[in-house]
Amino acid sequence: MTANATRVEPHLFIVMGGTGDLMRRKLLPALYHLSAGGPLRDRCRVLAVARSTKFNNETFRAWAREALAAAPLRTDAGSSAWCDHCLHYHSIGDGTPEDYRALANRIADLEREHTLPGNRVFNLALPPAAFPGAITGLGEAGLNDSLGWTRIVVEKPFGRDLASARELNALIHRYFDESRTYRIDHSLGTDTVQNLLSFRFSNPIFESLWNRDRVESVHITVAEQVGVEGRGAFYDQVGAVRDMLQNHLTQLLCVTAMELPAALEANFVRDEKAKVLRSISPLAPEDVVFGQYASGNADGREVPAYRAEEGIPPDSRTETYVAVKVAINNWRWQGIPFYLRTGKRLPSRATRIVVNFRCPVLTCFQPFTCDVRCNQMVITLQPDEGFDLYFNVKAPGPPFRLEPQRLRFRYDEAFGELPDAYETLLLDIVRGEQTFFVRADEVELAWRIYTPLLQQLPQVHFYPAGAWGPPAADSLLGDGEWYEPPHRT
Amino acid sequence: MTANATRVEPHLFIVMGGTGDLMRRKLLPALYHLSAGGPLRDRCRVLAVARSTKFNNETFRAWAREALAAAPLRTDAGSSAWCDHCLHYHSIGDGTPEDYRALANRIADLEREHTLPGNRVFNLALPPAAFPGAITGLGEAGLNDSLGWTRIVVEKPFGRDLASARELNALIHRYFDESRTYRIDHSLGTDTVQNLLSFRFSNPIFESLWNRDRVESVHITVAEQVGVEGRGAFYDQVGAVRDMLQNHLTQLLCVTAMELPAALEANFVRDEKAKVLRSISPLAPEDVVFGQYASGNADGREVPAYRAEEGIPPDSRTETYVAVKVAINNWRWQGIPFYLRTGKRLPSRATRIVVNFRCPVLTCFQPFTCDVRCNQMVITLQPDEGFDLYFNVKAPGPPFRLEPQRLRFRYDEAFGELPDAYETLLLDIVRGEQTFFVRADEVELAWRIYTPLLQQLPQVHFYPAGAWGPPAADSLLGDGEWYEPPHRT
Repeated sequence: MTANATRVEPHLFIVMGGTGDLMRRKLLPALYHLSAGGPLRDRCRVLAVARSTKFNNETFRAWAREALAAAPLRTDAGSSAWCDHCLHYHSIGDGTPEDYRALANRIADLEREHTLPGNRVFNLALPPAAFPGAITGLGEAGLNDSLGWTRIVVEKPFGRDLASARELNALIHRYFDESRTYRIDHSLGTDTVQNLLSFRFSNPIFESLWNRDRVESVHITVAEQVGVEGRGAFYDQVGAVRDMLQNHLTQLLCVTAMELPAALEANFVRDEKAKVLRSISPLAPEDVVFGQYASGNADGREVPAYRAEEGIPPDSRTETYVAVKVAINNWRWQGIPFYLRTGKRLPSRATRIVVNFRCPVLTCFQPFTCDVRCNQMVITLQPDEGFDLYFNVKAPGPPFRLEPQRLRFRYDEAFGELPDAYETLLLDIVRGEQTFFVRADEVELAWRIYTPLLQQLPQVHFYPAGAWGPPAADSLLGDGEWYEPPHRT
Repeated sequence: MTANATRVEPHLFIVMGGTGDLMRRKLLPALYHLSAGGPLRDRCRVLAVARSTKFNNETFRAWAREALAAAPLRTDAGSSAWCDHCLHYHSIGDGTPEDYRALANRIADLEREHTLPGNRVFNLALPPAAFPGAITGLGEAGLNDSLGWTRIVVEKPFGRDLASARELNALIHRYFDESRTYRIDHSLGTDTVQNLLSFRFSNPIFESLWNRDRVESVHITVAEQVGVEGRGAFYDQVGAVRDMLQNHLTQLLCVTAMELPAALEANFVRDEKAKVLRSISPLAPEDVVFGQYASGNADGREVPAYRAEEGIPPDSRTETYVAVKVAINNWRWQGIPFYLRTGKRLPSRATRIVVNFRCPVLTCFQPFTCDVRCNQMVITLQPDEGFDLYFNVKAPGPPFRLEPQRLRFRYDEAFGELPDAYETLLLDIVRGEQTFFVRADEVELAWRIYTPLLQQLPQVHFYPAGAWGPPAADSLLGDGEWYEPPHRT
């Protein structure tokens, strides 16, 4: 969330890994939308930095024009002119100290040329293995400081476990203090997640229900329909815990469970999220289910098992699915389980938070018998963003019968298309707004919860591709059931 | 609400005033829908009783066929055959004791002819002045009892004040005990009102909010767009308090405010409604606003003032509008005002209950300022039946801004067309189900609240036809505002 009054200062936006996939699909379209008629207007110049010496300004701009032409832009008027006007390229070569000093000179030249006051973003759009080299390279070349402000942006995954995350944090802090560090968890950039805080704290009727007295359990699902998509060798080193659970799902849990911050300021909000993480008990083995997809039918076609995908060892034990039961030991949530699940090759793509409220004390009125559905608030973060509040309604006419129905709200019906998370996050970065970026302690607290899990190597249950994970994940819920959206919406 | 298992017993449905307006518009279509393929099937015969000697079975059936042809029937297949099969006519002449004995003979004949076991409904579809004569006539002719069951149905208005209501109750009870007496308040027959009880008690999240800790105020509106519609001379003797406030609005208040009954049985439900009425303080003069429409623009045309309508004395002080502030002195509602308003020549026809929840303790997050709408539950009983729960949502993108939106449910989208209130109520009568009929003590308790008002003759404020009543009714709310539905739905 961004303060109303903050005007964006002129700056140079430097993307390390500037010819990569993230740049092409996300950063470039976001920068274009923000610059061309958006809040950055003429105050942003972009410098793409990569190893390749094949590119120069001209060839990079041609590459960028193609990337933008392939992207789903809201308005394409002038994207070609914008490329010529704003984009620059610099090769970092092998990344020697000499190369980084050359980068520093190039940056200084560009700032002179465009009369920029030395405000700089370094966005590390790199594979995790390249983070330390880039951070050290920038820091040792003196690029951690400037006449204006300097900010560093790191993409997930942030470490592989608690020890490596601590190491990475320490390395960053050697050159960049926390107030200049922006760890992206793109789920925090979506309007629906940012609205969760507003939703809870501007609507007293819901906030008054948001506690152990009224809630029975909370379910958070991040379901992917895709498999490993040609990234098998990479994914096999990662798995669902590192790829999704430690970051996205845990962040959603924090925003759902946290207390009201004293103000909507970055550290107040992040203090409350960290408090939630601190209240979480280490996971007991019986509270974790690992799964891996076998062959099956997904999206109307036969698909191979995970172990048969390219780049995956035939005896891989990497989890493509994980479900956990999390206990938050504080006054608000003591005794109320939070169930988190994520996986690949599930029946549909969906991110949602389901708050299951306590059931009625009597399931019906005497002398009638009927099934009453317990009230549920379903917050859908994607796709079809919105809120569904399930309640019971008397069906018209006799005989007396209750039927579950929904109170329904959809973002697109109220507001049209939502901005992409990256647009929101990049604007926050250049405005210096850290509320929806993950702080160092949050990363480490989250790893504290999940690292023991990764060391235990739990049993992996197989599930057919196209199913909602292994049956063991259903047993985890006890009497409960994972929410299934109705077919019609 | 009707028990699942109860089978309808064969019976004779006798309508006193059987050629009147109520018969034509409401009772006849309802009886047809219930009989022809409906739950009454072949178990109902209808005897229309009226003074006219011009009608006989044949001519009455022709009249009924015309009436049904003009009514909005869901299915018209066989309505003509149904008239021949089911309808009978009997003239009560001048209503002498001799006439009522003749009616008793005719009823006995019909029951023999159709092998009916002596189950009888007497529906008094008569003007109030004719109630005592009909009740006495039936009673003295021994028609208050039969070999099966006998039930009497009385339409509103039930008395003109506390004294006349007590008198009428006493007269009814001389011949019919309370368990056989059905006082119709047709608003209680609508599915949306019947659902209010289910809504509250099958949805713990709402029931937990339904009290003085979470609610700021409750507004109940029954708005009519029409004027006196040619019934001026009649209406001028009645006014809005007797026509609408004492019955419909007060019943809606009871269903909204009542405690959970021990079971969904008639006397348990009505005990709880009576408890609400007993907890209501007499109205202070400053809590009442009377209005009368002046000339104005309604429904796109110039319309005359009430005093210029046919049959209205030019100095009439009859209220065509009333708004009151009601205090319910019990543990649940102490200190929470219930505002009731009703009137003629208002901008639209609408019946709705608005529960205004308490506002957030902070209107926004520091460092932002913004207007937050307090949560509201709007229950629309007609038209466009449904629920709207207003909540605040962050508008997408910067700057940070909250916007009121609605969680929305519409009956017609979920269930299609709702049955008419009279269908529900007539079926309840022949099933012996009294839950949604008004008990003697309820009527008297309601009159106890409003009778002092009618004796005070409050000042009448004029409002232009087509406006939402006089400005004084807005002042009644203090800081609050009457709910206005958005233009788009």
